[in-house]
Amino acid sequence: MSRSENIRVGIILGSDSDLPTMRHAARALRALGLEHAADYEERVISAHRTPDLMRDYAESAEDRGLEVIIAGAGGSAHLQGMTASETIIPVLGVAITKNPDVMNRALGSCIGMPEGKPLAVFQGETGAFNAGLFAGRLMARRDPEIRLRYLEYNEELRVASLDKDEELHRLGSEEYLRQQAEPKEA
Amino acid sequence: MSRSENIRVGIILGSDSDLPTMRHAARALRALGLEHAADYEERVISAHRTPDLMRDYAESAEDRGLEVIIAGAGGSAHLQGMTASETIIPVLGVAITKNPDVMNRALGSCIGMPEGKPLAVFQGETGAFNAGLFAGRLMARRDPEIRLRYLEYNEELRVASLDKDEELHRLGSEEYLRQQAEPKEA
Amino acid sequence: MSRSENIRVGIILGSDSDLPTMRHAARALRALGLEHAADYEERVISAHRTPDLMRDYAESAEDRGLEVIIAGAGGSAHLQGMTASETIIPVLGVAITKNPDVMNRALGSCIGMPEGKPLAVFQGETGAFNAGLFAGRLMARRDPEIRLRYLEYNEELRVASLDKDEELHRLGSEEYLRQQAEPKEA
Amino acid sequence: MSRSENIRVGIILGSDSDLPTMRHAARALRALGLEHAADYEERVISAHRTPDLMRDYAESAEDRGLEVIIAGAGGSAHLQGMTASETIIPVLGVAITKNPDVMNRALGSCIGMPEGKPLAVFQGETGAFNAGLFAGRLMARRDPEIRLRYLEYNEELRVASLDKDEELHRLGSEEYLRQQAEPKEA
Amino acid sequence: MSRSENIRVGIILGSDSDLPTMRHAARALRALGLEHAADYEERVISAHRTPDLMRDYAESAEDRGLEVIIAGAGGSAHLQGMTASETIIPVLGVAITKNPDVMNRALGSCIGMPEGKPLAVFQGETGAFNAGLFAGRLMARRDPEIRLRYLEYNEELRVASLDKDEELHRLGSEEYLRQQAEPKEA
Amino acid sequence: MSRSENIRVGIILGSDSDLPTMRHAARALRALGLEHAADYEERVISAHRTPDLMRDYAESAEDRGLEVIIAGAGGSAHLQGMTASETIIPVLGVAITKNPDVMNRALGSCIGMPEGKPLAVFQGETGAFNAGLFAGRLMARRDPEIRLRYLEYNEELRVASLDKDEELHRLGSEEYLRQQAEPKEA
Amino acid sequence: MSRSENIRVGIILGSDSDLPTMRHAARALRALGLEHAADYEERVISAHRTPDLMRDYAESAEDRGLEVIIAGAGGSAHLQGMTASETIIPVLGVAITKNPDVMNRALGSCIGMPEGKPLAVFQGETGAFNAGLFAGRLMARRDPEIRLRYLEYNEELRVASLDKDEELHRLGSEEYLRQQAEPKEA
Amino acid sequence: MSRSENIRVGIILGSDSDLPTMRHAARALRALGLEHAADYEERVISAHRTPDLMRDYAESAEDRGLEVIIAGAGGSAHLQGMTASETIIPVLGVAITKNPDVMNRALGSCIGMPEGKPLAVFQGETGAFNAGLFAGRLMARRDPEIRLRYLEYNEELRVASLDKDEELHRLGSEEYLRQQAEPKEA
Repeated sequence: MSRSENIRVGIILGSDSDLPTMRHAARALRALGLEHAADYEERVISAHRTPDLMRDYAESAEDRGLEVIIAGAGGSAHLQGMTASETIIPVLGVAITKNPDVMNRALGSCIGMPEGKPLAVFQGETGAFNAGLFAGRLMARRDPEIRLRYLEYNEELRVASLDKDEELHRLGSEEYLRQQAEPKEA
Repeated sequence: MSRSENIRVGIILGSDSDLPTMRHAARALRALGLEHAADYEERVISAHRTPDLMRDYAESAEDRGLEVIIAGAGGSAHLQGMTASETIIPVLGVAITKNPDVMNRALGSCIGMPEGKPLAVFQGETGAFNAGLFAGRLMARRDPEIRLRYLEYNEELRVASLDKDEELHRLGSEEYLRQQAEPKEA
Repeated sequence: MSRSENIRVGIILGSDSDLPTMRHAARALRALGLEHAADYEERVISAHRTPDLMRDYAESAEDRGLEVIIAGAGGSAHLQGMTASETIIPVLGVAITKNPDVMNRALGSCIGMPEGKPLAVFQGETGAFNAGLFAGRLMARRDPEIRLRYLEYNEELRVASLDKDEELHRLGSEEYLRQQAEPKEA
Repeated sequence: MSRSENIRVGIILGSDSDLPTMRHAARALRALGLEHAADYEERVISAHRTPDLMRDYAESAEDRGLEVIIAGAGGSAHLQGMTASETIIPVLGVAITKNPDVMNRALGSCIGMPEGKPLAVFQGETGAFNAGLFAGRLMARRDPEIRLRYLEYNEELRVASLDKDEELHRLGSEEYLRQQAEPKEA
Repeated sequence: MSRSENIRVGIILGSDSDLPTMRHAARALRALGLEHAADYEERVISAHRTPDLMRDYAESAEDRGLEVIIAGAGGSAHLQGMTASETIIPVLGVAITKNPDVMNRALGSCIGMPEGKPLAVFQGETGAFNAGLFAGRLMARRDPEIRLRYLEYNEELRVASLDKDEELHRLGSEEYLRQQAEPKEA
Repeated sequence: MSRSENIRVGIILGSDSDLPTMRHAARALRALGLEHAADYEERVISAHRTPDLMRDYAESAEDRGLEVIIAGAGGSAHLQGMTASETIIPVLGVAITKNPDVMNRALGSCIGMPEGKPLAVFQGETGAFNAGLFAGRLMARRDPEIRLRYLEYNEELRVASLDKDEELHRLGSEEYLRQQAEPKEA
Repeated sequence: MSRSENIRVGIILGSDSDLPTMRHAARALRALGLEHAADYEERVISAHRTPDLMRDYAESAEDRGLEVIIAGAGGSAHLQGMTASETIIPVLGVAITKNPDVMNRALGSCIGMPEGKPLAVFQGETGAFNAGLFAGRLMARRDPEIRLRYLEYNEELRVASLDKDEELHRLGSEEYLRQQAEPKEA
Repeated sequence: MSRSENIRVGIILGSDSDLPTMRHAARALRALGLEHAADYEERVISAHRTPDLMRDYAESAEDRGLEVIIAGAGGSAHLQGMTASETIIPVLGVAITKNPDVMNRALGSCIGMPEGKPLAVFQGETGAFNAGLFAGRLMARRDPEIRLRYLEYNEELRVASLDKDEELHRLGSEEYLRQQAEPKEA
């Protein structure tokens, strides 16, 4: 597919049931100015159902010019570590979970990689978003536009927090929560 | 290697550091009358360091006539589930651990296999031995000799327990432990 | 009961409250072509409320020609291991749970079997289904029809994953999720 | 065996490897004046290796006049709950463990008994001793001698604690620990 | 209060928020023929809010003729162990929880009692009911009526399980669940 | 802001999403007679989004006359310990969580402070309220009004518990719960 | 005992086996200039063996002029919360443990105090020391000498860390560790 | 210090007690050809004892030309996340632990970073080494020498595993372990 010529980030997931978590990785990339199909791609690649595809994807990643792979799966969560083992580009593993127990399961499967096969681990929806931002940090060194967007994003976070501080300081918790609960006017 | 013509059980481990645990699988097989190199084989096969070997081993297992694979690994413990995904013969996964935390990690990685890719899970040294016995149960149906040995083994367990019961009943715990602690005569 | 003449798989559960989990074991068997009452049976057998029935069932299993027992129970989860202790045919234990804490409880009770009494452990709904498939693997060696169905099932899993991959690759996560959420046309 | 005519407490363990823990149950009984072979007995009874013995022991317990059974086992820890299911006399279950993970396993197997089959749970060496004392509480209602010994035991605990309090209060922790560390004179 | 003359079982709870769990202890007692206000009493006694009442209740329990105390509390769950420390009659501690994490907390607080102060531990709603049955086992030795009711209760459990077994055996899981789901006729 | 001249307690939270938990700290202070804006303040201060504000707040706390800081955050929960490290006034850390797993995470981050940097730890909504009361205990030594209110609050807790005890004692659990469930009259 | 006239801090422990942990609380107080018997006292007070002493100690603490109590115990760890319930001066609870499992147990028992009875929680040896420092923070507000010593202690921590930084920066890890391992000259 | 002109990787640790773990990060860098003081530096930087140094280090990292920071700390483990919050270069956080409980604590503190502040998580000694390799992957894209060394390292891993496989295959576990145990000849 010609459009993948310039793909810089690959987001891969073990199953489309992982999409509600992994979409946040793509959301983070878009927040830094990257675009679907132009700069990043999203793929369903299962370590267990399509192991050949997983291997091909990992082995060709460097040649295709991918700078980083973000891999997410739940349960046994083998996709993340197996991908990290079959490429030398950085792999960010997102441990996906539906409930706390499964969370530990996937996290344990990711965090226990043996010496020699590094996997950078993140967890859950927040972790998927942060994996996207982390990919941005990797690219920001050579890409001034991403770097600038990243700094702006950080500044927005800072200002939003300060605004809330001023509001809470003034109102106190009861009034603050009361105003949040009431319907917003147009 | 011609000697593997009749190999019925494959014991595979992610690293030779898993051998102190996995040797117990072989010990169980020998207790049922199987022999090294003739009936079972032991292999170091790493999901992360030798993924091609892992795939070849799993894909050729049925053609080679293997009846069951016993796979053990610690940490992320991907070997067990990846092997189960690439064959249709039964795979028994032993979750290996050096301390309680790692135990949970490997166990979680094994027990969380997705729908469609079954892995029968065992844990630790005792689990490795039991996986060997379980392999024996699979073969006992068509192999009267293994079946007989299995029944004898069970009877030995029963009698040994009854002997200890009689001894403890007679002596009481203090005397029983005192006799155990004293040096055995020749 | 004459119809049990050819029963090959016994699915036993500690209580009918375990049925929403254990039905998936039967579902897997049917996916491989086995039929209720003809090839497999489902039974409520409680280790605590009907221990005599449990013992009789386990002790007669081999003579009745059962090839494998799939046992599921929650809480203390004694059914699985007690059954494994009183037969020499393979027993697949499904640890059942309603919430994460109970999950650990039943899983621990199953995974801790002593040396000499092997229990192959699975967990939850997915594990119940996989235990059914695992039973299929045991039978596939001598039953070409089951083997064929198993391979077809695997191929369906593979193709379904590839189809989703192509769709997600093309659409991206936001559009993919949007299309999933919209009502399907007739 | 005629000596068991008046046995009031049965201490049963799954394996003699449980004896270092379970001996403390017997120690507590002796502290209340009961005697080995006269008032209590100790038995090796395995749920998995000698299930028939387990059943016979539980079913005959009431007729033999046992007032309470203290059952201890580790790992899957089925002995405690299975025994409780096959008698109506009180059963005290001691969850045995060698390390923290196994501790959780045995404890979970005991604490998860289903509605209708009560098991009073204790844990580890301290729990084994306390199970012995708890048996003493059951008997103290009708046995003034046991009751008196129990009260004396409690008073000893109280006085020993007060003595240590006075000593620490006077010396402070550094001097207290220094005196504890130095060799005692004859 | 004169009506407590013959109270045999005291059920105490740390807060009335524990009642939805602890009511099951009273339900078990009633299933064995005991009556509210005549044979057992229920009390709100907080280790933290009414420590004097807790102490008085525990210290007077033996003189009042109580045969057993069933104590339930959640969170720090001090009521159970503190009560056990201030009486010599048997205390059954029910660890109460609203979610899995709190469950571990209350269970840990109960199971960790020091040597010399025994507490028999149960957990959750099922445990509360079983604590009531366990109290029944204590009384059954000298009370033929309770003993008889207990045996009847056990038999009901057995028969109900056998009935379900027959039904499931005949129908299979899909039909069994379908019939359960459909509205019952009058 | 001139109104902060006499602020005695600072309540700080990592995000306004922590407010439903942390409002209970303010509620406790008001129960002891302190007033919003006059005696205590509430602030949104993020260790990660506004680290400079966090540092300034902690470093100026003593000079501003604050007697105690109550800090709450979830997830990585760095706010509590970082604040404790940059001031010498007492810091009460509330570990916030949305589900049990996150609870452990935030609690672990708070309870693991290194030697030399003390943080007093509380957990969840109940802990936030109790942190407010604990602040009251600190102030009660020199503030007779707070001390008096605290004693009154304690007495109310005691009496409310005794009232419930009397009610439950009289009604029994079934009737008690029935009366609670029925609609209250005007 | 007349010497307790000016005791400002009470360190209480459930058993002298808790002393190796709790001595660190006293060590912290001495680091701030307080003296054994003059400014602080250490006591063995058991919630279970000497509950009357516990109650008396807590109830008289305010009248005796104690400014803060540091309470440590392991296992069920009731001392900390029971003491907090019977006084209104601040109580710092140290959760003591010998291994990770017991750690969770004691920590859970402390962290779960109900609304209305605040306990400030610390854990282990490091927590005992930090509880001592936290007591120092409480006193520093009105005691310039303690405040000064606290600031000096903090400065020592800072300088020691900077010194190590310079050393490691210069040497690198291998040489740094090599120098640490070699015997120090006189 | 002029020598830091070309420093590409900063390894920072909360305390020199973290060095036995974190030295493995440096070891990995050296395996890829980087040199101490020339290419990477090691620093003791404490979030709690030297927060100003931590902030300065993070804020100046990009200007100094650092390409990645590897941060390790145990206990509350705030260094990793606080550093990630104050720079936009990639931060790899190593959760350090001495025992399983602390492992969970530090891991939880790292894995729970809020949306917007990404931290790539690794754990323990193996994780420290892998973090070093991961840093190598980041640099390999533009640095052919590192890339080449990385590929060689991977090949060594592969060959070593294959050698062990051949050896075990030939010898079987008992003989393999026997040869390992015997003293090596010169």
